[in-house]
Amino acid sequence: MLDRLFDALPALSAPEQFTELLARPGLRIERIVSSGQASPPGFWYDQPDGEWVLVVQGEASLRFADEDQPRQLKAGDFIDIAAHRRHRVEWTTPEQQTIWLAIHYAAG
Amino acid sequence: MLDRLFDALPALSAPEQFTELLARPGLRIERIVSSGQASPPGFWYDQPDGEWVLVVQGEASLRFADEDQPRQLKAGDFIDIAAHRRHRVEWTTPEQQTIWLAIHYAAG
Repeated sequence: MLDRLFDALPALSAPEQFTELLARPGLRIERIVSSGQASPPGFWYDQPDGEWVLVVQGEASLRFADEDQPRQLKAGDFIDIAAHRRHRVEWTTPEQQTIWLAIHYAAG
Repeated sequence: MLDRLFDALPALSAPEQFTELLARPGLRIERIVSSGQASPPGFWYDQPDGEWVLVVQGEASLRFADEDQPRQLKAGDFIDIAAHRRHRVEWTTPEQQTIWLAIHYAAG
């Protein structure tokens, strides 16, 4: 059972990795490790749950469908993504693993 | 509204600081910044909700009443504290601010 966020990181060339850290009714805490991946062209996430995300390490660019410009995120930046707010990951740095902490919660 | 975990840190000599980052039904995300504080002698937290905590920066020592030895936590370490599991913070480093991310969730 993983209990250190920086343990067991995939290689920089590896696919994006998703690890569940906690699951409770209406709540799921997940570590996501990106290694330069972005969402496929034209793809938008449209999720039934809210998602609060924190970039713990690395850098990313997150785009909302209702905004013109992507948000640039670096270590320590966090953002709350409301349920069904369409968004995509435009970019993650290829220089190092980008570690996201994602808190998925049931929309109230 | 705070959207960077490393922003607006209190001085090292400041009291422990609690900042709510997100509040939703059954969920509260909080940043806690400790600067060498520990729980008062003989004090135990006994909380009605579950709490998942991540040390983002710094070092701490967390003791459970049902364990003989405290857990040593450093940046990246996380732990789930079940509702009503008595615990206390034995120590946080005086060398730098210890930043905790705490996810408080309704016990299922």
